[in-house]
Amino acid sequence: MTRVLVTGGSGFVGRHTLPALVGMDVDVHACSRSLRPSANGVTWHRADVLDSASAASLVAQVQPDVLLHLAWFATPPDFWRSPLNLRWTAASLDLAQAFVRAGGRRIVGAGTCAEYLWRASPCVEDATPIRPASVYGGCKAAVWSALEPLARDAGVSAAWARLFFIYGPHEPPGRLVPSLVTAMRAGTAARCRTAAHVRDFLHVSDVGSALAALTMSDVTGAVNVASGQPVAVGTIAKGIARRLERADLLALDDGPAEDAFVVADVNRLRDEVRWSPRLTLDEGLDDAVTWWSEHAPPAEARLAK
Amino acid sequence: MTRVLVTGGSGFVGRHTLPALVGMDVDVHACSRSLRPSANGVTWHRADVLDSASAASLVAQVQPDVLLHLAWFATPPDFWRSPLNLRWTAASLDLAQAFVRAGGRRIVGAGTCAEYLWRASPCVEDATPIRPASVYGGCKAAVWSALEPLARDAGVSAAWARLFFIYGPHEPPGRLVPSLVTAMRAGTAARCRTAAHVRDFLHVSDVGSALAALTMSDVTGAVNVASGQPVAVGTIAKGIARRLERADLLALDDGPAEDAFVVADVNRLRDEVRWSPRLTLDEGLDDAVTWWSEHAPPAEARLAK
Repeated sequence: MTRVLVTGGSGFVGRHTLPALVGMDVDVHACSRSLRPSANGVTWHRADVLDSASAASLVAQVQPDVLLHLAWFATPPDFWRSPLNLRWTAASLDLAQAFVRAGGRRIVGAGTCAEYLWRASPCVEDATPIRPASVYGGCKAAVWSALEPLARDAGVSAAWARLFFIYGPHEPPGRLVPSLVTAMRAGTAARCRTAAHVRDFLHVSDVGSALAALTMSDVTGAVNVASGQPVAVGTIAKGIARRLERADLLALDDGPAEDAFVVADVNRLRDEVRWSPRLTLDEGLDDAVTWWSEHAPPAEARLAK
Repeated sequence: MTRVLVTGGSGFVGRHTLPALVGMDVDVHACSRSLRPSANGVTWHRADVLDSASAASLVAQVQPDVLLHLAWFATPPDFWRSPLNLRWTAASLDLAQAFVRAGGRRIVGAGTCAEYLWRASPCVEDATPIRPASVYGGCKAAVWSALEPLARDAGVSAAWARLFFIYGPHEPPGRLVPSLVTAMRAGTAARCRTAAHVRDFLHVSDVGSALAALTMSDVTGAVNVASGQPVAVGTIAKGIARRLERADLLALDDGPAEDAFVVADVNRLRDEVRWSPRLTLDEGLDDAVTWWSEHAPPAEARLAK
């Protein structure tokens, strides 16, 4: 049975990826800074991936065949510019090296659409220029830039999942879907500032399923993990307002003309990983709005009510 | 007077860059792991750039306006694959962060033609795909990928010098020019295995002069530092044999067809930095052959004589 070690398994994306891996008859190990009880087919280990000694000892102890590295600093909006991106860059490369040294067979990392030159969208993995506009995108691109030749030299299979726009349960509260749901449920104005922007949205349970499929495949190189379906941000906002019957609270601004269109080419994901989304956008929004209605955060909107 | 801090100032490229900066009426500071007496207009500091605490304290002490970061692991042929590239990646980003925190104004780093997809040569800075084939190229590309948005966010001017093929005094002995000179002077067979490969060669004193010019300019982004003159490797080899009158010892193989052509587009260097080579290829080879004839290393070729 293939042993997979997942970093960031308790994060927004990670917690949806673990059950997808468990469902694939894989020996799933995950790590967290705090000790968690092993359950639901996942063996948890305590480790701090930012500490290279801790990461190396984790890898030596678990001896994974495959490493799925999702851990990163992801608190919005700070993650775009935080110097922590640089620490995660170094830590990710240390972890990759430790994994290679321990005889690992395949490594899959989490990249981002923010690596691409957005105005050249649709984003095609090896054709669209990599020209990150943010420290976050730059550091993610940096990891793959160093990781790809490192893995090639070591004879280790490597893939790089470029994630696009993700929504769903456990999303950080400050982002689009939770902030709109929270505001509307609190009866306060819900402003969408980039309604005309076209993006590629994928429900996080599908992101987890796609990552699990990519991880267990032998596809190498960069692979966009996305729906391939362009949708306007305003469409999402209106979909939420309709579900909550609060269209009266919704204010839409088009947003700046630059970077108005950021969508993924998903040919590699569909044809090589042989993965397609399980949920339609409507099904995904149904789920997200229901979940956020039941798990509304103690957000500014509520406090200001 | 602008204060410039140079890392790697005692290396092959660095030692030719320092006098060029001194000649530009700049307050030149350099660092080395061993203590060196300050002389020839250069103030030396003791620091280990691989140690982020040491690097941060160096920056805090010198308070440079401009940082020219040349230090890296460069021993041929190990540097192509060594895991030390990953340590230098992390150390370079730590150094850049320390410099930004200390209020630095401009940062210039040393990249490489090995960042480019060679088969797409001629290499144009923002057009040719970045697709490193080596860990070395991957890690250099990684530094720039993270550094560019980091500097942009901080309002720090940043440039990235992509160096091509460099020869001249103090070149590491195992490389093309010194190994041919050494073999021919020892009277042993001098084999050139990639004679048909076309490359962009620049004498190291011109590299130093170009780096100094770029450093003191306000040009930002990636800039190829090269001659812009394609020349066959075999032409270099024959030029050396002619100067040493040992054409009888020279054996030329064409080399593999892949990556046969790697040359730089130098429009940015010429038109924006306003720099052009001082030495012709013939003048450069005269100098290099003379220097290596006087400084022949205790190489295998001599020992095997």
